[in-house]
Amino acid sequence: MEKVLVVKSIDELRAKLKEYNGKTVGLVPTMGYLHKGHASLVEKAREENDIVVVSVFVNPIQFGPNEDLETYPRDLDRDIEIVSSSGGDIVFAPSVEEMYPEKAEVFVDLESEIGEKLCGESRPGHFRGVMTVVSKLFNIVGADRAYFGQKDAQQVTIIEKMVRELNFPVKIVRCPILRESDGLAMSSRNVYLSAQERSEATVLYKSILRVQREFESGEHRVEKLKEIALEEIGKSPIAEVEYVEILDSRTLGNIERVNGPALMAMAVRFGKTRLIDNCLLEV
Amino acid sequence: MEKVLVVKSIDELRAKLKEYNGKTVGLVPTMGYLHKGHASLVEKAREENDIVVVSVFVNPIQFGPNEDLETYPRDLDRDIEIVSSSGGDIVFAPSVEEMYPEKAEVFVDLESEIGEKLCGESRPGHFRGVMTVVSKLFNIVGADRAYFGQKDAQQVTIIEKMVRELNFPVKIVRCPILRESDGLAMSSRNVYLSAQERSEATVLYKSILRVQREFESGEHRVEKLKEIALEEIGKSPIAEVEYVEILDSRTLGNIERVNGPALMAMAVRFGKTRLIDNCLLEV
Repeated sequence: MEKVLVVKSIDELRAKLKEYNGKTVGLVPTMGYLHKGHASLVEKAREENDIVVVSVFVNPIQFGPNEDLETYPRDLDRDIEIVSSSGGDIVFAPSVEEMYPEKAEVFVDLESEIGEKLCGESRPGHFRGVMTVVSKLFNIVGADRAYFGQKDAQQVTIIEKMVRELNFPVKIVRCPILRESDGLAMSSRNVYLSAQERSEATVLYKSILRVQREFESGEHRVEKLKEIALEEIGKSPIAEVEYVEILDSRTLGNIERVNGPALMAMAVRFGKTRLIDNCLLEV
Repeated sequence: MEKVLVVKSIDELRAKLKEYNGKTVGLVPTMGYLHKGHASLVEKAREENDIVVVSVFVNPIQFGPNEDLETYPRDLDRDIEIVSSSGGDIVFAPSVEEMYPEKAEVFVDLESEIGEKLCGESRPGHFRGVMTVVSKLFNIVGADRAYFGQKDAQQVTIIEKMVRELNFPVKIVRCPILRESDGLAMSSRNVYLSAQERSEATVLYKSILRVQREFESGEHRVEKLKEIALEEIGKSPIAEVEYVEILDSRTLGNIERVNGPALMAMAVRFGKTRLIDNCLLEV
């Protein structure tokens, strides 16, 4: 295909994909307002599949009542251009009514420490909404592979667990975080930041770099590494830390020392904007 | 295929089904100890699909702590014969370890009146277990059609809702209740009944017949129809009624009069054995 096909209905998407029976399909689920991070997922999917579907859907059931569902940035025309230039074939951009014709009452959820830590604590119901919509997308698209960014580390860990436990016939591909030239992790929400906030938000990556440095110099005590991160983030007077955690990267369980692969993850508010970032620490 | 293929591993089943790419697949999910009711599902699937898979799996997560998981009757050799004589191609009989290699922590669940009524009230967690295992089976088999008995009316209503909301690419086929010559609905659990219990359990179908007769004679008041059913069931001194309900058959919501399609459903204990039965009442 040369031109990106934009599909808004589930039936139309299924009919289209049926034409490609036998070809491999890669799915990149997104909430739109795409940036280079998303583009890198689409490019990866392009390398590995015959057909690349990018879904653009701001999923209401993963937002809490006081979150930014209404103001979440949207620009479908720009998204289509980015998908096109990254090698995607189909943009699936359903309406809320198409995805939820009835009030959602069937959910995929998890009862696990993995869902209660980090963003699970501050955003109750968030991962239930994510798992439910991703299940719907898997069932609609029937993809062979699905691409998720490591930026949302807890999300991709949970999706991998869901795929494993519910036997979804799809391979999850984790893709690395993309960063702006000053290190800020790319995010659709960065557009919310004022000039000052945007400038100060660089403390997140600075804290990651400093922790990585200390870790490589032999500091493996979690409390100490967290202190270092908090000190670095504290250099911004407007940064409000929601959490900084270092956890077992597979189970998201608490650890006291980094002996195996660990995830350092943080959520920090700058004004009204909540940013997340993370890195892996491996011995 | 002439002989039934018995498969115990998910990977082997998937590999086998991949060989039949392009053929239609019908799935009959069962807990085994098959009877003519199951056989009728397999025969229906045989008529409508190229390949018929019958799963035989006593799903632990749909049993409550005080229920009959341990004693639930099992006889795989007999099941294979029944599948064979009903025209099935593959028996998928995984172990508990194959289906749940880790402790189950990801569940499909519903938050709806539909799940809280009838068996949902007396068997908390039951439908969550059913929805979760059926999701797994759908994902493993990738069936075009799946066959469920109307005997478990609430179950099939919930599965239909799940398929609709989560967009599973499968068509649910409801099949009628099969009955013994004296009217008792066929069930794997009938084997639990003593001779006396077996004889008295016929009050269930007698109550259904009497309610249907009164309904056809113009009695549409739900309270009155329930009274008639309870009176008929009460003719067995050992029958212990768990519920007798008449509800909107689509939403399972309460009604006072039968104006649209309604479901009369009952759960009654005879000794230690809990039996369910139901019928549709339509104007």
